[in-house]
Amino acid sequence: MKATICVTLKPDVLDPQGQAIQKACGTLGYGQVSQVRQGKFFEIDLDAPNPEAAKRLLGEIAEKLLSNRIIENYRILSIE
Amino acid sequence: MKATICVTLKPDVLDPQGQAIQKACGTLGYGQVSQVRQGKFFEIDLDAPNPEAAKRLLGEIAEKLLSNRIIENYRILSIE
Repeated sequence: MKATICVTLKPDVLDPQGQAIQKACGTLGYGQVSQVRQGKFFEIDLDAPNPEAAKRLLGEIAEKLLSNRIIENYRILSIE
Repeated sequence: MKATICVTLKPDVLDPQGQAIQKACGTLGYGQVSQVRQGKFFEIDLDAPNPEAAKRLLGEIAEKLLSNRIIENYRILSIE
């Protein structure tokens, strides 16, 4: 199975990288962009008997390995 | 409007960070994970009259600013 997970900073955590990108958008003439937040994206190939098992496994991996739960949230975007 | 974009390494580009995560999964007892590829994830707030205009704008920004088109691909995941 193939899954995708994103890990993003919690809303109240500052994101200087995202702010820099938002400013760069303005400089390039894209003033319509009012906010950018940067996160991480993971594509994971795994063996699982069914999507429910995959979801449980991915949740554990995201909690233990992919994210820092103090400042970050994760979201399983797709399991195929 | 809110949009999400992911930027991933092209399939033939080595991803040592992803390999390290895949190995760490094995060490943690998740041997079911056969491959991990890491990319970047962007949440973007923007003003656009309709989703088509937003898509065009996001494509330009992704091409010019968010990705290195020599080694990376981008995908607009959602526009709401």
